[in-house]
Amino acid sequence: MDQSIIDQIEKIVGKEGYSVDPAICYTYGFDASIFHNTPDMVVQPRTTEQVSEIMKVAYANKIPVTPRGAGTGLCGSAVPIKGGIVMAMQRMNKVKKVSVADLWVDVEAGCVYNDLNDELAKYGFFFPPSPGSAEACQIGGMVANNASGMRAVKYGATRDFVMGLTFVKADGEIVRCGTRTIKDSSGYQLARLLCGSEGTLGVITEVTLKLTTKPKKSASCLVAFNTVEDAGRCISAIIAKPLIPASCELMDSISITAVNKARGNPLPDAGALCIVEVDGETDEVIDRDLAIVDEVARGIGAVAVMPTKDKKLIAQWTDARKSVMTSLSALKPGCACVSLADDMGVSVSQVPEAVKAFQEIAAKYNVTIATYGHASDGNLHTKMVIDPLDKDEWERGVKAVDEIFDVCIELGGTVTGEHGVGISKAPNFMKERQSELSSIRAIKKAMDPENILNPGKLEQWEGSILRNLRYPCPDFM
Amino acid sequence: MDQSIIDQIEKIVGKEGYSVDPAICYTYGFDASIFHNTPDMVVQPRTTEQVSEIMKVAYANKIPVTPRGAGTGLCGSAVPIKGGIVMAMQRMNKVKKVSVADLWVDVEAGCVYNDLNDELAKYGFFFPPSPGSAEACQIGGMVANNASGMRAVKYGATRDFVMGLTFVKADGEIVRCGTRTIKDSSGYQLARLLCGSEGTLGVITEVTLKLTTKPKKSASCLVAFNTVEDAGRCISAIIAKPLIPASCELMDSISITAVNKARGNPLPDAGALCIVEVDGETDEVIDRDLAIVDEVARGIGAVAVMPTKDKKLIAQWTDARKSVMTSLSALKPGCACVSLADDMGVSVSQVPEAVKAFQEIAAKYNVTIATYGHASDGNLHTKMVIDPLDKDEWERGVKAVDEIFDVCIELGGTVTGEHGVGISKAPNFMKERQSELSSIRAIKKAMDPENILNPGKLEQWEGSILRNLRYPCPDFM
Repeated sequence: MDQSIIDQIEKIVGKEGYSVDPAICYTYGFDASIFHNTPDMVVQPRTTEQVSEIMKVAYANKIPVTPRGAGTGLCGSAVPIKGGIVMAMQRMNKVKKVSVADLWVDVEAGCVYNDLNDELAKYGFFFPPSPGSAEACQIGGMVANNASGMRAVKYGATRDFVMGLTFVKADGEIVRCGTRTIKDSSGYQLARLLCGSEGTLGVITEVTLKLTTKPKKSASCLVAFNTVEDAGRCISAIIAKPLIPASCELMDSISITAVNKARGNPLPDAGALCIVEVDGETDEVIDRDLAIVDEVARGIGAVAVMPTKDKKLIAQWTDARKSVMTSLSALKPGCACVSLADDMGVSVSQVPEAVKAFQEIAAKYNVTIATYGHASDGNLHTKMVIDPLDKDEWERGVKAVDEIFDVCIELGGTVTGEHGVGISKAPNFMKERQSELSSIRAIKKAMDPENILNPGKLEQWEGSILRNLRYPCPDFM
Repeated sequence: MDQSIIDQIEKIVGKEGYSVDPAICYTYGFDASIFHNTPDMVVQPRTTEQVSEIMKVAYANKIPVTPRGAGTGLCGSAVPIKGGIVMAMQRMNKVKKVSVADLWVDVEAGCVYNDLNDELAKYGFFFPPSPGSAEACQIGGMVANNASGMRAVKYGATRDFVMGLTFVKADGEIVRCGTRTIKDSSGYQLARLLCGSEGTLGVITEVTLKLTTKPKKSASCLVAFNTVEDAGRCISAIIAKPLIPASCELMDSISITAVNKARGNPLPDAGALCIVEVDGETDEVIDRDLAIVDEVARGIGAVAVMPTKDKKLIAQWTDARKSVMTSLSALKPGCACVSLADDMGVSVSQVPEAVKAFQEIAAKYNVTIATYGHASDGNLHTKMVIDPLDKDEWERGVKAVDEIFDVCIELGGTVTGEHGVGISKAPNFMKERQSELSSIRAIKKAMDPENILNPGKLEQWEGSILRNLRYPCPDFM
């Protein structure tokens, strides 16, 4: 990177606020996806004004800028695929103000999800989405990806809580959009547009989120089935009662086997498991809902139904479910669990049909695919377990992925429910959103005419996703 | 309008699908705002494809097109200020599919809010926003304005329920955006951007809404205070408990007097009234919440607290609250209740301060201003009661309005919570959203380069709002 640009950046953030050290830059070339590319510089701003000044330098010199939260994304959204600057937000990590009576909190983009909820818990409130990376992921990243997690069916995704935000445009203009009022019909919903834009429209620096009260009681029920199709049918039937659970996690037999092998059998062996969480204000409501789950599950043919209010047992189940991804990497020696056909969404009633199709596709291409996820909102995670040094296995994997996404699109579903598009979903995203592409391209061009904000992703990706892989598979380096 | 254009439109929608009759066109020059302008043609399409074909004709001939729902909007969003075509959606009024197990409903833009909820009630679900015009307003109009109503504090506004929608762009391109899945992080949230765009980015033809279960129990509590400031303090204190009510309606003494005069004293005389609604799954929850309301209200100095589960009494209170606007028009002979400084939003805790400032401004300009509204979300309606033939009163009114909105903006609030910008909010909207305007303009230009979709409103409005008035005040005709 040109020394004069380095000097300009140093003037803005000081010596401690940036790095061009190749080792540090290399580290910031990763997120939690399968991709890697080393940027030329990492900047860690402390204020919105600093972000604005950095963007002015980048804009004047047409330098790509990739905003980055905690790097927990699984699709490559934070990988600086065109080099340039990584804008890492972790120093802007404060909960600025909690206004309980007004139901909002102002938080900086780099604040960690769990830290925010620790603060809100003092007042009886919470920010519900519960992503898998809750311990690390940052609010700005969650907004940029419209992240969610286990609780979307009842409480919504990140987009549903964003009242307003501050972002910096490509040319450095600072925009405060939305409000700190519960209602807002004053012009275009820019805050909602920024939500899910993955750093391609602006750098989010602060967010105003709506607060929600935390229900006083909750309980969970572990339900075992012979097949994953039965588990899917059970979830649809619960919702149609109507009973909207706080969460409902699904695991197929591969996921269960992997977790039990890696973690010392915390789960009963079964063809599929559902962990259904119900919450509410009193024990009476919880007991009523647990009884409904029991009745529906047995009607579908559950082989075991285990309701409990024991917080320790529930934590053990949650922990087991959260360990699927890491456990899958330990399933076979030399293998890794990779996020390829990850995170599709279908209508809840289509989960059985979708999972059956995934299994057939896995068999056809001789790859191992585990299915688990947030079944009550139709959001599935199909992780592939492959040898990352085997070119042939990658290529079979990608073929399987394309067919899997074709099934999702045919079912009227989406290729990504909560992880975003980034790189790994880009080709199938364009297939899914064909009718939106002209609008997406027009808005991107209007907001970022020089194409410096996280360029080369989403609708701009070209060709196969098998490049810039993080794994040392020589054929794709 | 040119005969060749009329012929092209007739080919698309048939003789029965349009009108250029001046009497009919005159009628479609109104909505529920203070404005009027006669269009050249009214078209009533029956399908998205017809809308697309109509837009192609309009685009080729640069004819303004103003989409219209039921015309219940209070800001002039549906008044065809530049003439051209009014696209009236009432023939596209079907609930197309309710997918209960998947928690979505597909509905055409012209479907009436109450009709949709009648259909959803069969399954135990509802679409909560509850606008004041529930009997007439259409889903497409609600989405275009991000409408809400009494239940936003607990359930959210229209934007929070929009999973996907179909819209037609200025050039006739049909776009299906969003999903029928509960989660969606696949690219820009175009459906949320269209929500609140007031027909300036596209014509919304179909909407997919998320379903919510209707709580089994509810109750209401009428609380009387000596001052509207006390009422405001009470609401903040309830929320901070934390207790989020299903709704909480506020009426000041002018509103109470007007309703009691017009409707035969359905309400107790007081300085201010709150009608607090609580809902939940069991009587135990309802009773607990009513007790909290009672305790908080008495602590603030309520002069009467009347909790009830009597549906007839609650309906009478709701009816009284809903009749404020019409009752105000009967307050003084020869006067009309006009929507000028209507529908501002502030943080809930600022309601007392805001209302006090409004009263001072009303006194300063010698105008009658009634304040009522959805206090638990800080959304107030300050209706002005004026002689619509009196030029001086209009001018004093607009000065008062500008000052009122200055107060709201200074408090960090918004000039419109649920009605949209249209014409009557346009100047103050631009003041409020100064930092968003460059983005709004860039997006408008990208989506509607010929500026034919509902032109001349929002950020395009120029000068005073005192023109194109519906009232026969000669000075403003």
